[in-house]
Amino acid sequence: MGLPFTTRKATQADSESIFNLVYELAVFERAPNEVTNTTEAIQKHGWGENPLFHCWVAEVEGTIVGIALCYIRYSTWKGPVLYLEDLVVSEAMRKHGIGTALFNECVQFGRENGYPRMTWQVLDWNTPAIEFYKNYGASFDSEWVNCSISLQNESME
Amino acid sequence: MGLPFTTRKATQADSESIFNLVYELAVFERAPNEVTNTTEAIQKHGWGENPLFHCWVAEVEGTIVGIALCYIRYSTWKGPVLYLEDLVVSEAMRKHGIGTALFNECVQFGRENGYPRMTWQVLDWNTPAIEFYKNYGASFDSEWVNCSISLQNESME
Repeated sequence: MGLPFTTRKATQADSESIFNLVYELAVFERAPNEVTNTTEAIQKHGWGENPLFHCWVAEVEGTIVGIALCYIRYSTWKGPVLYLEDLVVSEAMRKHGIGTALFNECVQFGRENGYPRMTWQVLDWNTPAIEFYKNYGASFDSEWVNCSISLQNESME
Repeated sequence: MGLPFTTRKATQADSESIFNLVYELAVFERAPNEVTNTTEAIQKHGWGENPLFHCWVAEVEGTIVGIALCYIRYSTWKGPVLYLEDLVVSEAMRKHGIGTALFNECVQFGRENGYPRMTWQVLDWNTPAIEFYKNYGASFDSEWVNCSISLQNESME
């Protein structure tokens, strides 16, 4: 647990590092081909007047080794809630408390802004992540199935 | 299929009808106690300068009998995508094409605004809904588990 690291709010200049960690997570989640997003898009979407997400980074000796990225969703049951889209710590940097620190940044942000709840998803085979979230007293619900259609295919109308 | 109905974008004055259908769906989904949202909150959140969601309603003889409610999420894999939070048709009004018309409103909105994908969730035991979505060529992924923590409980830090 002795690895020195710091966490801070991400800046636009971090976009390439953020994208690289998003991609590293997609490879781990066995879906790298699903990634069509780019560094340039992240630069555009995360900052300015209407940022589409909030992001924190963790650094070790000036290198970004982890991110937490979240945004607001609208639950018709709960109203606005915080959604943790990605929590990534580069593989070689795990088990040093970096994921905990990044997760706590999101929790603190959510509390400061009055969101009643933070939600996210985990793959059912990602046991280390599930164990990590159990430490927070998270509740897990596997009854819901994710559904998706492309809107770029005219054949669907 | 002969029931005459119309669909249109919801207005703030529809908030009570929207809430009633949200609640009807929560009862069907066996989770009415999860609903802490209110008509007043929906009035506040859905309109004005920064609406948190987009909603369409279906009417039969001037009565709202169905809603589709969606908002934008930020997928780190895909960029901004459309998310269908709720698609509800009051039980007595099903099987008349109302759900299809409301679903199509969201699809059209998503295409007009250039979102590459629409996603949503369905309960794994909701066979009629799953069959409905199969007609659209939807893909289903049950590997992901929904996770949640309260941000109102100080014991979690």
